[in-house]
Amino acid sequence: MITKINHIAIVVNDLDVSLQAYHELLGLPIGARKVMAEQEVEIAFLPAGDSLIELITPITEESGVAKYLAKRGEGIHHICLEVEDVEAALAEMKAKGAQLINQEPIQAAEGRAFFLHPKGTHGVLIELLEADPQ
Amino acid sequence: MITKINHIAIVVNDLDVSLQAYHELLGLPIGARKVMAEQEVEIAFLPAGDSLIELITPITEESGVAKYLAKRGEGIHHICLEVEDVEAALAEMKAKGAQLINQEPIQAAEGRAFFLHPKGTHGVLIELLEADPQ
Repeated sequence: MITKINHIAIVVNDLDVSLQAYHELLGLPIGARKVMAEQEVEIAFLPAGDSLIELITPITEESGVAKYLAKRGEGIHHICLEVEDVEAALAEMKAKGAQLINQEPIQAAEGRAFFLHPKGTHGVLIELLEADPQ
Repeated sequence: MITKINHIAIVVNDLDVSLQAYHELLGLPIGARKVMAEQEVEIAFLPAGDSLIELITPITEESGVAKYLAKRGEGIHHICLEVEDVEAALAEMKAKGAQLINQEPIQAAEGRAFFLHPKGTHGVLIELLEADPQ
């Protein structure tokens, strides 16, 4: 079902500062940047081989990401595993009784996705993503 | 410098339970398993495309991983980015004034590596690894 690690998402206080830091320190190229109004976040990608590092920062004080940042500080927020077919993956997760955050696929920056609750995955927020064709 | 995401490491309470859960829920194959006596942990890998999910559990109560688990619970512990030349990467990090946990490369399960302190990477423990030839 899973074809690769699509991205690792890191919550940060300031997107500009962190993007520049990751770019300069690790030499990673700076990729796409996007405001995700529905999730109340701004994100930026740094490609790392065939995967991505995703930096996320809240753009409101009420978003889930804002609360996470206030409570836990900067750090890894979730991992995203790529699947070929998000509908099939969701059906399979439901059949297995997985604890889901989304009952239907949501629109993510890079395709359609849904999240598994950390309670069912030993503490890890996992996104399963069907990436849009490039 | 960085060629890909080598692995994402997740700290868990019970390696057998978590390994089976990740294998059954996500359909990831079960890969290599190893006791790392020096780090006082046991690890197991689940390949995900060209990268790995690494599950880690402490085998003593005094290890850094044991303390992390006691304090924060199960969840993502670090990410590992692969480099072609660990000595060159370490020299570059020193020249850039990066906050290092290791001043010299250490022996990791899959090759030689060193860790960057989360204080200098916006909250993320990052391992830079030169993988052994397969």
